[in-house]
Amino acid sequence: MTVINLADYQKFSSEKMKKNNIFQTARFFCDIYCFEPGQEQKGHIHGEQDKVYLVLEGKGTFQVGDEKQVLGPGDGTIAPAGDEHGVRNHTNARLKVLVFVAPNP
Amino acid sequence: MTVINLADYQKFSSEKMKKNNIFQTARFFCDIYCFEPGQEQKGHIHGEQDKVYLVLEGKGTFQVGDEKQVLGPGDGTIAPAGDEHGVRNHTNARLKVLVFVAPNP
Repeated sequence: MTVINLADYQKFSSEKMKKNNIFQTARFFCDIYCFEPGQEQKGHIHGEQDKVYLVLEGKGTFQVGDEKQVLGPGDGTIAPAGDEHGVRNHTNARLKVLVFVAPNP
Repeated sequence: MTVINLADYQKFSSEKMKKNNIFQTARFFCDIYCFEPGQEQKGHIHGEQDKVYLVLEGKGTFQVGDEKQVLGPGDGTIAPAGDEHGVRNHTNARLKVLVFVAPNP
């Protein structure tokens, strides 16, 4: 069986937000997104995928549809297929977000 | 937008392991499974669903296929469709596990 630890999937990049893939199959993928201060994933739309965000560390501004909200550790939200969504680390600290997308695009 | 906090989905039951649903769509569901000491989810198989386990708190014995392993906080594993899988809290402390399943059966 495949055993991982979340601590091993938390790399950052000074260039842009970094996606660290933990698991993926045709049915889903599970990543940790790591944002340095100021980094973002701009608003975008998946026509056929639902996405869940769960904040592991830090705080960020999350957009789903026309709404934006600041989420912190333990907070989560869902971007259903067709809803524009994005994340911006507006803080001075690092942001780590567990992401689950189904199905895998 | 729908905002949740993981702390609000961690109920236990003295009768059996408790599933606390956080999000679900046709494409996936996301639960927190809460196990009192000694409680278990017996080995079972989903023919068409992949399942991810991520341990939030405590330790448990996780089975995937013919293997069993003790996982603790931050550890995770995947049970691909067709693989028997189960969880047993063999400890004297509570066990909380984040679970993703895609697609939703």
